[in-house]
Amino acid sequence: MPKARVYITLKPTLLDAQGRTIQNALHQLGFERVQSVRVGKYLEIELAPDGDPHAQLEAMCQQLLANPVIEQYRYEVVDE
Amino acid sequence: MPKARVYITLKPTLLDAQGRTIQNALHQLGFERVQSVRVGKYLEIELAPDGDPHAQLEAMCQQLLANPVIEQYRYEVVDE
Repeated sequence: MPKARVYITLKPTLLDAQGRTIQNALHQLGFERVQSVRVGKYLEIELAPDGDPHAQLEAMCQQLLANPVIEQYRYEVVDE
Repeated sequence: MPKARVYITLKPTLLDAQGRTIQNALHQLGFERVQSVRVGKYLEIELAPDGDPHAQLEAMCQQLLANPVIEQYRYEVVDE
């Protein structure tokens, strides 16, 4: 059964407020070496084994999973 | 500069309500082939180049990034 991993992150030009908050918290905990943190979503999706998983994933990301205006996404099919 | 990717997901035995909701939405959009969806967090962390990034990442996950009671995590250092 094809299994896909989808990674969705804010576009690099946008300020990642959540990531900045995590970075500050890490600094306060003593992790001074952290230079930047960016937060995204990670999805593991199992698909039935018929059809083209890449085309399906592209459509899913465009229609529901990501907001293409502010987010970028990538995916990989790990078990075709 | 070392760059790390951290993946945090619910432990497999726990019901992923958010993932189930996304799965239902995908089915309603016509993506009937989706068998399961699990949602997690994805972080990209840049570290200053001194010290052992793996030890630092392990400590960060334990202390702040993940909840080890209900979540599992893994990380990779992509650019040492």
